[in-house]
Formats: sequence, C-alpha cells, structure tokens
Amino acid sequence: MPSVEIVTIGTEILLGQLIDTNSSHIARTLADGGIDVFAKHSVGDNTARLAAMLEGALERADGAITTGGLGPTVDDLTKDAVAAAVGTTLALHEPSITSIEERLAAFGRSGPLTENNRRQAILPVGGVVMTNAHGTAPGFIALRADGKFVACMPGVPSEMRAMLADSLMPWLHERFGVRDAIFTRTLHTIGIPESEVDRRIESLFRELVNPKIAVLAHTAQVDVKIMAKAADRAAADALIAPVEADLRNRIGAGIYGVDDETLAHAIVDRIATLGATLGCAESITGGAIADAIVRVPGASRCFFGGIVAYDNTVKEALLDVPHATLVAHGAVSEEVAAAMARGACERLGATFGLATTGIAGPTGATADKPVGLVYIALAERGGPVDVRRVTLPGSRDEVRRRALMFALNLIWRRLEGDQKSVSHVSMA
Amino acid sequence: MPSVEIVTIGTEILLGQLIDTNSSHIARTLADGGIDVFAKHSVGDNTARLAAMLEGALERADGAITTGGLGPTVDDLTKDAVAAAVGTTLALHEPSITSIEERLAAFGRSGPLTENNRRQAILPVGGVVMTNAHGTAPGFIALRADGKFVACMPGVPSEMRAMLADSLMPWLHERFGVRDAIFTRTLHTIGIPESEVDRRIESLFRELVNPKIAVLAHTAQVDVKIMAKAADRAAADALIAPVEADLRNRIGAGIYGVDDETLAHAIVDRIATLGATLGCAESITGGAIADAIVRVPGASRCFFGGIVAYDNTVKEALLDVPHATLVAHGAVSEEVAAAMARGACERLGATFGLATTGIAGPTGATADKPVGLVYIALAERGGPVDVRRVTLPGSRDEVRRRALMFALNLIWRRLEGDQKSVSHVSMA
Repeated sequence: MPSVEIVTIGTEILLGQLIDTNSSHIARTLADGGIDVFAKHSVGDNTARLAAMLEGALERADGAITTGGLGPTVDDLTKDAVAAAVGTTLALHEPSITSIEERLAAFGRSGPLTENNRRQAILPVGGVVMTNAHGTAPGFIALRADGKFVACMPGVPSEMRAMLADSLMPWLHERFGVRDAIFTRTLHTIGIPESEVDRRIESLFRELVNPKIAVLAHTAQVDVKIMAKAADRAAADALIAPVEADLRNRIGAGIYGVDDETLAHAIVDRIATLGATLGCAESITGGAIADAIVRVPGASRCFFGGIVAYDNTVKEALLDVPHATLVAHGAVSEEVAAAMARGACERLGATFGLATTGIAGPTGATADKPVGLVYIALAERGGPVDVRRVTLPGSRDEVRRRALMFALNLIWRRLEGDQKSVSHVSMA
Repeated sequence: MPSVEIVTIGTEILLGQLIDTNSSHIARTLADGGIDVFAKHSVGDNTARLAAMLEGALERADGAITTGGLGPTVDDLTKDAVAAAVGTTLALHEPSITSIEERLAAFGRSGPLTENNRRQAILPVGGVVMTNAHGTAPGFIALRADGKFVACMPGVPSEMRAMLADSLMPWLHERFGVRDAIFTRTLHTIGIPESEVDRRIESLFRELVNPKIAVLAHTAQVDVKIMAKAADRAAADALIAPVEADLRNRIGAGIYGVDDETLAHAIVDRIATLGATLGCAESITGGAIADAIVRVPGASRCFFGGIVAYDNTVKEALLDVPHATLVAHGAVSEEVAAAMARGACERLGATFGLATTGIAGPTGATADKPVGLVYIALAERGGPVDVRRVTLPGSRDEVRRRALMFALNLIWRRLEGDQKSVSHVSMA
C-alpha cells in the first residue's frame, strides 16, 4: 500500500491560534482511498524547518502532502523548501498565468496581473500542476528523481477539498495503481449506550472481513461505520447493503439517519411527512431545540415556532402554566413540564409540543433538586403527555446539550412508534 | 531559547476520527512560557514510527513532548518507543505503585492493583516522574545521555493540562533557566472591520517592543492580543495596563470584553446592572439569540424569555404583528421586524425587545429579497424602534450565525450609548 505523510504549514496553526481541520480531512480521505497515512506534521512559516520536515517524510514514506503556505506573504518560502526537498528549481509556468487570468476574469476582475498573482504561477520545474477551482493559487506535485513526491495544496479548506478530490486523489490512484478504495456508510444512533450497541453487534466484528465495521461514540450519540473496500461506489454499495440490513435488524429504532443526516433533519422529515407540526416550550434548553430545528433547510414545512419560557412569568403568560402549579411543585417539576408541553401545542397551534425544564447550574440546586435534574415533556394535541425525569452530568453547557439531545430523542422515538426505549442519554 | 517538538500519539487522532485539542494547548502554553515550538507531529499507535519520530525531534530540538499513548492497550508501545529513543530501559517504579494505590483509594476503590494499574508504574529508568492529579497513569520525563529529553503525558485533556501546568512547565523553566514568560491579555471587539482596527492601532505595531500586540479576526469579531514578556503576572500586568488604556482609547466602544468573556456575558452583565430585562422575538435566528443568552450563568437576572416566531401565524398570535403589515410588506421587512421587537417588549414584559427576520436560504429568495437579507430590530419599552437592514453572505448556517452576531452587537452598542456605529458585521 502506498504511504504518505501530511504536513500543515503555518505559524498560526502550529501555535494553536487557528484550528486545523485540513489535516484530518486529508487523512480520512487518504485512508478511505486506500493510502496509508504514516504521520501528520505541523510546521511554522520557516523554509529550513519545512525543507527538513519534507526530507524526513520522503525518507519514511512514498510522498508528502502539504496544505497551507501558499498565500501571498509565505508563498516563496514554501516553494523554496519544496524545490530543495525534491532537488528541482522554480520557474514561471506560462499556462498557469493564463488560468489565473481566466479565474480573475470569472471573479469579475480584469487588467494586468498583480505581482502576487504572477508569483502564484512560479512553480517547481518538471512537476504536475493542479488547478484551483475555488481560488487563484494553483497547487502542484513536485517529483524527486527517485519517484517520491511532494504535493502542495492551498490552506483555504474549500480550495483544498476540491483540489484533493478532483486532482490529487485521481493522480495518486493512477500513479500507485490503487484499484480498491475504502467506501463508507455511517449509521447514526441515539438513545442506546455504546456498550449496548457493542453487545448487539459484537458477533459481526468477528465475522466480517469486507466490509468491516467500527463503533464511534459522541455525546449522547453512537455511530456505526461500515467500511467496504471496493473498486467503485457501486461495488461498495453491494457489499454494504446486506451488512446495513443486518445492523438495522440488530440495532432497531435507535438508528435515525446515515452519513450527513442530523437527528433534527430526521425529525423534520418525519413530522412533515405526517402532515403534522411541532412547537417548543423551552426553559433549560433556552432556544436550543428551536435553533436545532431551524438549522434544517425547509424546517418551515413543519415548525411554526417556540416559546423560551425562562422566567416563571413567561411560563404563565405565554404557556398557560397555572400559577398554583408553579407554587405547589416548583418550575422544575413533572407537572410544570407537562403544562408547558400542552401550552406549546395550544399556543403555537402545533400537533406536538416539546418542553424542557431543569437546573443547568452552577447555582439553583436545592436539597431535593440537584444540578443536572431535567424534566422533558412531549404532548400530542388531544392526547396524553409523556414526561421523563433525568439527571444529566457535566458543566452548565454539557447539561444543556444533553437535555437538548434527550428531547430530540424523545420526539424521534415517538415518531418511530418506540416510546419505551427512551431512557438513556449516553454519558460519553 | 530552548526548543521542543510536540508529538500526539494515537491512530484515531492521526486519521481524524478524534479531534486533537491537546497539541494546540501545549503549543500555546509553551510559546507563552518562553519556549520555542519547532513542530507538531501526529503518529498512530506504532512503536517503530513513534521511535523514529522522537529520534528526529531530538535531532532538531532540545526535547520532545508527547501526549496520548498511555492508555491500557497502547501503554507498552509508547514506553518502548521512548526508551529506545533516549537509550534507556524500563523498570517498575515502586513509589508510583504507592501513589497509584493512593489515587485509587481516593476514587473509592481498594483491593489489589490490576495488571493494567501495575503496568502504569513501569517507567523509563533514570527519568523524572510526573504525578497525575486527575487520573492514575503517571507521566514521566525520560532523559538521554546528552541531556535531551522526552516528556510523556496522558491524552485525557484534563489530566494533561494539570500535569503540564503543575509539573512539566516548572521543570522546563528550572532546567533551561527561562526567567521570563509571555503573559497575555486579549481584548474582544465586535462591529469593527479588521482593516479599521488595524488602521486605528497601526502606529503601535511599530512603536511597541514589550508588550507586543497582534490582531486576530474571527466571524464578525476581531481580537487584539497584548503579549508581555515578564518574570511574573504582576510585572506583566504593569507592562500591559498602559497599552490596554491606549488601545481602548483608539478602538473605543467596540471592545466588549477581555480574555474568556463572551459578548452575551457582557450584555447580561450590563442589562442586569441597569435593572433592565431583555426579551427576544426570533424568526431567522430561530432561538439562537435566546440560547446564547441562556448559556451565560445567571442569565435569569435579566432574561425572562423569547418567542421563536418562525411562521407568520406565530408572529400574529404571540407577537401581535398586524396581519395587514405581514400582507403589505412581507415577513422579511422593516415593518415586521419593528412590530416583532415591540411585541417582544409587550408580551415578555421586557425593557428591551430584540427581533430578527430574514431569508437564510437556500430557498425563499425573491427578485427583491435575496438570500442573506436580514432585518434586526431593537425596541425599548415606550421608546422608538431601531431597525437595521443587512445582506449577509454565506451558507444558511453562516447567514444565521452572522444575524445572531449582528443582533448581539446592536443591543451591545445601545447599552454602550453608541448606536451609530452598528453598520458592520465582518465578512471574515
């Protein structure tokens, strides 16, 4: 299997002032594409250190892939280091001048190229140029006499991602004759502990060779990733389909979506399909449920609105929670959660009313109501109210985040006709 | 200046399945502590590659600092690689057995140590042990005959951070005789373009030697960081104070907080100090303003609640937006934004009403109302309504995020008595 190392260039990333998302994306793409990633490195804008890093990488692996270091102020530095590492020189690449001019014209800018733009067309001699579909600076692949390579891409994520997919991955597959790539499909689950997901599918871990499966835990969610090695997506899908069916059979209604689908997406789609609508009444989550729903494009199909009832006066005035109920049971109680959910249905004219009330901390706890105590209620118009009591761990932010996930899980399970299994929000 | 390289150990981080926050934290801490960071690396759980990486790091720098690779399954691998890189052997470190026993007892577990716990006490001979205040696995510093070192810390962020602050940084300062460290103070600004911040303070860039300043741009926000080199915090503060005063004088009311303070924090503090209250009426932001406010501990001092009025029926029923206004001007209009803000004051009994309405996309645009068109309105009870119209760039998520920042900036400026300067949300 061909091997590479990834090098991220830039002092701001080295010192943690900018977050690096590029190197993880490149590593995942390479691994999925059947190429072994030996290591990732981050160096500042320093020619000598970068050249040394690239030489080291070419000792250990078949090639190095860099991202960043192609901006106007640091451009020369990166190219000098690459030329030194592979033993070539730099020269003006005339076709790149033309494509930079075309790119600028497409952006609505004309006239002579600036000195910065001209410098972007100075590239290592004897290499391969990768066009930049989303910006002006071209990428390139510099080749050493022994066939090892250094591929350089811009640091702007949208430019890098397009160049990686459209130019570099096809070049790598061609050069190394990699026939099979890894294709994945990720099933997202909610409301099942990781240990329980493991238990239900553990025999598959031993049985499966291609595709393989992996379990990844996040806050309140567990993903099961199916990874198939195949020549193309269609062949991979044929391998994945029976395994997915088996997993769905074993895991059941906890699976809410695949790949890029969020739980809020799944909820919006399901409610809209039913011709129903959703309204929220939020105290502890303070607008986070509504925000998650509104993030989904087309949420207006089934979401009319919500009421953030942080203060008791708002619970009374806008959700019709009886004053006596608040006095008798306190704002954080089963009775108030239920009244809030019913109020959301009535006041927002919604089929489903979803309500939260709890103690996020750091203050507000009492002897019998600790920080993390949360009630989540789901009302259906003209039907009973389902109220759940949980005690959620963590900081104020974490308690609120887990309350949000618990609430989304509660309505998702209702929509799936699986009310009984809502008893768990992963503590991961 | 002493120099180090940072090595993150673990296949999940190498392949981007886990996000690495440790290496940035270590890099910042070292840089602030007067130690030069040459490079960061990430390697999988592989003894040979890790040993080669550490040897390379010790060629270039005075030492290597690792994080991760000390868990039960990969522990031996990391220690073997470190012992190979510095030329020492491993042996059971009896005092660490005792401290692991004490740690487990403190966690409420007693009885004989497991094999895993015993293995945690097998450490490189001749090194320095770093106790783990938040877990069982000790860290250590292995020393090579020439005085170069490899320091290993756990990958759990809370354990690593405590060990870095309490053990490793003091050891580094002692060993390398570093007297001065870098102390920082960051001023957060909103509503001023980066180029304008630059213009106002550019002469300081040239004049200042210690402290130095740097400008960092984020979405809709620009930070100015003051970095002083001094022997301790008090000496640094004395250097920072006059520069901060000068910066505040030049930048003016755009500064809302320092260091860990968010804009929502500043708003909550200011409104509570005034004895006033805030209510929200959100369409395009869909609960995000309320959520940002409720994230602030103690938000209940000044925040009663909000109404997410996504559908027009909710704008009418809960915010008293006249039906005729909606028909005449459309939901995304100055008139509706103003009515929503007034409705928030009235219905929520709030001093200030903050409202948003706009087109987040990808659908919903018309010939005269493009995606990104947003109206933000701020009403004060019994006063006039201030409505702003902006066209915000980006995806659905980005438009919504910028609308949130614009709204927070609008009320912040009102609280600061500086209404005129709200015309900009950085496009960065």
